[in-house]
Amino acid sequence: MTNQMRASYLVEPGEVALRNTDVPALDSDQVLVQVAAVGVCGSDVHFYQHGKLGPFVVDQPLILGHELSGVIAAVGSDVDPSRIGQRVAVEPQRPCGKCAQCNSGRYNLCPEMIFFATPPVDGAFCEYVAIQSKFAYEIPDSISFNAAALIEPLSVAIWALQRAEIKAGSTVLIAGAGPIGVIVAQAAKAMGATEIIITDISEDRLAFALKNGATRAINVANDNLDGVQVEIFVDASGSAPAVYAGIKAVGPAGYAILVGMGNDDVLLPVSHIQNNEIWVSGVFRYINTWPLGIQMVASGQIDLDVVVTATFGLSEVDAALNNGKLPNQLKAIVDPRIN
Amino acid sequence: MTNQMRASYLVEPGEVALRNTDVPALDSDQVLVQVAAVGVCGSDVHFYQHGKLGPFVVDQPLILGHELSGVIAAVGSDVDPSRIGQRVAVEPQRPCGKCAQCNSGRYNLCPEMIFFATPPVDGAFCEYVAIQSKFAYEIPDSISFNAAALIEPLSVAIWALQRAEIKAGSTVLIAGAGPIGVIVAQAAKAMGATEIIITDISEDRLAFALKNGATRAINVANDNLDGVQVEIFVDASGSAPAVYAGIKAVGPAGYAILVGMGNDDVLLPVSHIQNNEIWVSGVFRYINTWPLGIQMVASGQIDLDVVVTATFGLSEVDAALNNGKLPNQLKAIVDPRIN
Amino acid sequence: MTNQMRASYLVEPGEVALRNTDVPALDSDQVLVQVAAVGVCGSDVHFYQHGKLGPFVVDQPLILGHELSGVIAAVGSDVDPSRIGQRVAVEPQRPCGKCAQCNSGRYNLCPEMIFFATPPVDGAFCEYVAIQSKFAYEIPDSISFNAAALIEPLSVAIWALQRAEIKAGSTVLIAGAGPIGVIVAQAAKAMGATEIIITDISEDRLAFALKNGATRAINVANDNLDGVQVEIFVDASGSAPAVYAGIKAVGPAGYAILVGMGNDDVLLPVSHIQNNEIWVSGVFRYINTWPLGIQMVASGQIDLDVVVTATFGLSEVDAALNNGKLPNQLKAIVDPRIN
Amino acid sequence: MTNQMRASYLVEPGEVALRNTDVPALDSDQVLVQVAAVGVCGSDVHFYQHGKLGPFVVDQPLILGHELSGVIAAVGSDVDPSRIGQRVAVEPQRPCGKCAQCNSGRYNLCPEMIFFATPPVDGAFCEYVAIQSKFAYEIPDSISFNAAALIEPLSVAIWALQRAEIKAGSTVLIAGAGPIGVIVAQAAKAMGATEIIITDISEDRLAFALKNGATRAINVANDNLDGVQVEIFVDASGSAPAVYAGIKAVGPAGYAILVGMGNDDVLLPVSHIQNNEIWVSGVFRYINTWPLGIQMVASGQIDLDVVVTATFGLSEVDAALNNGKLPNQLKAIVDPRIN
Repeated sequence: MTNQMRASYLVEPGEVALRNTDVPALDSDQVLVQVAAVGVCGSDVHFYQHGKLGPFVVDQPLILGHELSGVIAAVGSDVDPSRIGQRVAVEPQRPCGKCAQCNSGRYNLCPEMIFFATPPVDGAFCEYVAIQSKFAYEIPDSISFNAAALIEPLSVAIWALQRAEIKAGSTVLIAGAGPIGVIVAQAAKAMGATEIIITDISEDRLAFALKNGATRAINVANDNLDGVQVEIFVDASGSAPAVYAGIKAVGPAGYAILVGMGNDDVLLPVSHIQNNEIWVSGVFRYINTWPLGIQMVASGQIDLDVVVTATFGLSEVDAALNNGKLPNQLKAIVDPRIN
Repeated sequence: MTNQMRASYLVEPGEVALRNTDVPALDSDQVLVQVAAVGVCGSDVHFYQHGKLGPFVVDQPLILGHELSGVIAAVGSDVDPSRIGQRVAVEPQRPCGKCAQCNSGRYNLCPEMIFFATPPVDGAFCEYVAIQSKFAYEIPDSISFNAAALIEPLSVAIWALQRAEIKAGSTVLIAGAGPIGVIVAQAAKAMGATEIIITDISEDRLAFALKNGATRAINVANDNLDGVQVEIFVDASGSAPAVYAGIKAVGPAGYAILVGMGNDDVLLPVSHIQNNEIWVSGVFRYINTWPLGIQMVASGQIDLDVVVTATFGLSEVDAALNNGKLPNQLKAIVDPRIN
Repeated sequence: MTNQMRASYLVEPGEVALRNTDVPALDSDQVLVQVAAVGVCGSDVHFYQHGKLGPFVVDQPLILGHELSGVIAAVGSDVDPSRIGQRVAVEPQRPCGKCAQCNSGRYNLCPEMIFFATPPVDGAFCEYVAIQSKFAYEIPDSISFNAAALIEPLSVAIWALQRAEIKAGSTVLIAGAGPIGVIVAQAAKAMGATEIIITDISEDRLAFALKNGATRAINVANDNLDGVQVEIFVDASGSAPAVYAGIKAVGPAGYAILVGMGNDDVLLPVSHIQNNEIWVSGVFRYINTWPLGIQMVASGQIDLDVVVTATFGLSEVDAALNNGKLPNQLKAIVDPRIN
Repeated sequence: MTNQMRASYLVEPGEVALRNTDVPALDSDQVLVQVAAVGVCGSDVHFYQHGKLGPFVVDQPLILGHELSGVIAAVGSDVDPSRIGQRVAVEPQRPCGKCAQCNSGRYNLCPEMIFFATPPVDGAFCEYVAIQSKFAYEIPDSISFNAAALIEPLSVAIWALQRAEIKAGSTVLIAGAGPIGVIVAQAAKAMGATEIIITDISEDRLAFALKNGATRAINVANDNLDGVQVEIFVDASGSAPAVYAGIKAVGPAGYAILVGMGNDDVLLPVSHIQNNEIWVSGVFRYINTWPLGIQMVASGQIDLDVVVTATFGLSEVDAALNNGKLPNQLKAIVDPRIN
C-alpha cells in the first residue's frame, strides 16, 4: 500500500474532479478502511448541485459520500491487528466522547461531532478512509458490500422507528417511496408493524414499495389520505404538504418523525397535534443502530441490494450524482475499486 | 333543596342570561356538587366573544365554566352517602371508560369524551353540577374554594410538565405570563426545575411571575431569546411567534409543549426540531393530575389564590367574562352562591 | 334460550360435579357469551388439587376456567344488539374503573378486581358467562374457538415481553417448555426477538418448542446455562432453581420477568442483579393485550392450535383437569357445547 | 511540584501504611487533581477489614478511597490549561468509551471499567490522582471540599431515585439511616418526594434523619412496617430482613432499588413482586449525576457537610477506617493535605 490514493472532490457546484491525495493517517483508536461501496445520498446530490446544505457550505474541495463499506487495511496502535482483512460497514461519524450528549448515549447530538462529507470533513468517494475501530462493524460474508454500505440509510430508518416506539402491531404511514421510504417500509415490517401505508406520486415507486415492505400504497397525485389513521408517520419526502397531511393522519398519542429534509420552517397542523397529543420530532442521523441493522440484513428480514439500481467507478462520481434524474432509479453506488 | 337552580347561559355571542333550570339528575356513579367557585378560562371568554372555539359551535344556550370546586350535596345510588358535605375539587370530564384510550390510561383522548362547557355539554356557571364520584376529589380545609377551582389549570400545567419529562434540575422556558404561565412557573419549581425563564410583553406580569416561581423574566417587547437554551419550553401564550422562538430556544433532546391555543396551523422551525431531535407536542386537558395538584397546594408549594384578582356572583358572569380586559387582572372567579 | 344452564363445579379438592344453575343476569354494559372453548390452566389444576391457591381458598362450590371464547348470545341494555352472534375471545376480568390503577391504565392491578375462577367469582366451565362488552373481542373466522380461548395465555406472554421492553433484535431466555413457555417463544419471535433459548428437562417438550418459536433448546437435566447471556429472561416454570439460573444469565441492563408461580419467597442472586442493574419483576395477568394477540393469531405469526392436545366435554372436566398427568400433553380444552 | 507523593496503602487486612510513590502520569485527556478531601465509604472499610469485597481481592498494596474532591494541579496535553487551579469534584471512574454499554450512555456497566480503589486500581488516599478531564467537575466556592467529595455518595442516591422514576409527589421508604440513607432522604426531598419514611434500629440516627430529609422514622427494633405502603423503596442497609420487609411495603407498580450491599443471594418476596408488578433492581455506581448533584448542593437543597462527623490526615487513615465503630459517627473524611 502506497501512502497516496485517488479521491473524487467536489470542486465547485456541479463539478467533481479525481485527484491524488494522502491516505489518511490513523489515530491510535482508528482503522483504515479500503472503501468497497459508497451509496449516493440525497445530501451528496444537494451539495453537488448547490455547494451547500443548510448551514454547511463547501468552500474548499470536499470529498462527498458517507454511506460506505469496505475492508480493514490497517489499524491504529491501540487496535487489535487481527482486524486487518475484516469486511466492515462503517458508521461515518466521530463524536467527542466527553460532552453531556455523549455521556448520555445521545452521541448523534454531540456538538463537536465530526461527520463524513460535511464541510470541512471529507467523506468516502475515495480509496481509503479512517474511522474509529468501534464504528467499523464486521459483517458476515452473506452481506454484500452494497448492502453493507446501505446500513447507513437503514440506520436512519431504524432510529426513526425506534424513536416512534414502534412495536408489534404498530400501524405506520410513510410519505415518499424513494430509497429511504422503501427502507423504512422494510424496517417497519421487520420491527413488527402490521399495517404499512406508503404514499408517492409515482406508480412505479409505489408498486416497488408494495413488493418491499409496504402493505398499501396511495398515489397522492390522485388520491388523498381521508380516512387513514395510523400510530406512526414517517416523512421520507421532505415535502411540506406531505408532512402536513401525514401528521393529520396520526391518531391519538401517535408519533410523527420527520426524516426528509426540506424547508427550514414548515406549517404544521398544531391544533391537531395538541388535540391528539401527537409527538412530533425528527431524526438527526442515528445511534447504536449498526448491530441491529446488520442482524436484520444477515437474517434476510431486510433486502438492501434490491434498492441498488446502478454502480459507478471512482472516475464516474458525476454520473453517480446525476443518476437520480434517470427514470426508475433508486440508489446509485460508487465502487472506488473500479476505474 | 329544590329541583330547580339558577344558571348563567351564553345565549348568543356577547350575551349571557340568568335562567332557572332543573338541577341535574344523577347517574348511579355520580355526585351532585353545589358549586362554590368557578374560574374563568380563556376558552370561556372565546366562546363568549365568538360563539365557537375551533370545531365547537354554540348553537343552543350553553352554560360555560369548567374550573370548579364546591360541596357534595347529594350522591348517586352507588356512591357512599358519607361523601355528602365534602368539599371537593372537580375534574370536569366524563370519559367513556370502554375505548382503547380509556383502557390505556389516556382517558383525556377518549373520542367519546363528555367535557364541561363544550357544546352541547353544559358547564359550571350554575348552582349545581353532576360529576362521577371519582372525579370529585376531597380537599383539606387548608385549600380555599378558589384554589380548589384552579386545580384545573394547575392540572394543565402539571400534565404539560410531566409530558416534558421534567425532573430535578430541569431548565424551563415559559412563553406568556398570564394565569397559565404563572401556574406553570410555580408547578415547574415544585417539580424540581432550577431555571425557570418566563417571557411576556407586560412588565407587570413579568414582575408578578418573578415573585411566583420564575427565576428570570424576559420582556420580548424589547429583548429576544438569543443565547437562551433550555431543556423544556412550554407555550402558554398561543402566539405563533412566541411558539417559533420558544422552540428555537430548546436544546438537544429537549421538549416543546404547546399549551396555548392559537391558529390551527403554525409555522414551526422544523430543521431545528430535526437537528436537535426535539419532541414537540401539546396537551389536551390532563390525566390523573388532581391528587398531585391537591397535594402541591395543600403543602404550600403552590399558591393558587395569588392569581385570583376578582370575584363575581352568578348574575355577574358577563362582568367576569369581560374582566380580563381590565388592567392587572389575572384570574376571575364566579361564586354561584352569591347573588 | 332457557334461563338455566349446566355448569361444572369444584365441590371439594379433587371432585367436580355437573349441576344446573341460573344463566347469569346481565349488567347494562355486559354481554352474555355462550362458551365454546375453555383452556385448562395450571391455576385451575392447582385449585382442583388443593382447594386453594396462594391467598385464595375455595370455600363454596366454584366454577373454574378463565381462558375462553364463544358466541355472544345476548346483550345488556347499553350494548349494541348487533353484537349478538359475534364470535369472541374473552378477557376474563372486571376492574372497578374508578381507582388510581384503573385511571392510569394499569387496570390489572385494580384492588377491586373481579376475576373469573378466583374465589368467590365463578369462571367458564359452564354454558354461559357474562362479561363487559368491551372485554368480549370479536375474532375473525380464521381464528378457531380453541385458539381464541388461548389468547388469554398469549396475553400473559405478550404482557411479559412488553414489560421486558422486547424489540427487534432482542435475545430471550425462557425457562420451561410447557404451554406458556412455547407461547412465550412464539410471541417473542413475533415481537422481533432473534435469539430465543428455551430450557426444560423434557427432550420432547424442547423438540416441540424448537419447532414453535425457539431457536435453541437446552436440557437442564444434562446441561447448564454457562456462557448464556441474554437481554430478557422469562420464567415460565415456577421453579426456584430455574429462576435463579435464569436471572444469572441476564446481562447488563436486562430484564427478568417471572411468570411462573412457585413459592411465595425465592432466593435471588441479588449481587448479580445489582452489579448488572437488571430489572426483575413479574406479571399479574395483562392489560390491553387482546387486540394485538388476535392480530398475531389472525396473521399467522402465532399458532395457538398447535398447543392443544386434548378436548373434553362439560361432563369431563375432571378428565380435563387430570389430563396434564398424561405423557406429551400440553393444553387441554373444555368445550361446554358437547355432552 | 515534585514527582513523588505520599499515599496510604492497605498492605494487608487491618493494616495501612504511609509510603512514597510516583505522582500519576497523565494521559492526554486527563487532569491531575491534588486531593483535598476523601470520604470513607463502607466498601473501603470492608476492604480494610477483610482484604476483599465480593469478587475483588486485594493481593498487592492498594490505595483505598473513591469519594473525593480537590484542585486541578496539572493537565494532559489535550486539556485546556486554564483548568489548572479549579476546585473540582471527581467522578472516580474511567469507562472504555467503545463498548455497547458506553455507546448507550450506560457507561457504569462498561465491562472494561477502571474504578478507583477497586483492586488492582488505586484510589484517593494520597496526594494526587489522575482522572479524565470530563470527570473532574468544577465546583463553586460555596461548596466545601468535604461536600464536594460526598457528591459521590449523593450520586448513588440520585441514580437510585432516578431509576425508581421518582417525581413530584412520590412516596419513599428508606431502610438504614446511615450516611447513605440520610443522603437518599435529602435527595428524595429535593427530587419532589412528599412522604419519606426511614427505618433504622438507632434512635439517634433516626432523629438525625428526621432533621435531614425524612418525614417519618420507624425504629424497626420495636416496630414493624405494617400498614406502610410506598411507591419507592430504597435499601441503604444491606440487611436481608430489611430488604424483604421493604419490598413488601411497596405498592402496585412500585420500585425497589437495592443500594446496600449484603449477601450475594437474598430471599425475596417473589409472589408480592409478581402480584403487584413491582420493579426490583439495584444500582451499580451512577451515570451523569455530578452536574445535578453539584447543583443541588450549591442551591442549598442538600446539605452534605452535615453528615461529616470526623476528619483525619493522611497518616491517620487507619483511624478514619475505624471511625465508624465509635458512637454517633456518620461519615469520616481524610484530608491528605494535613500530616
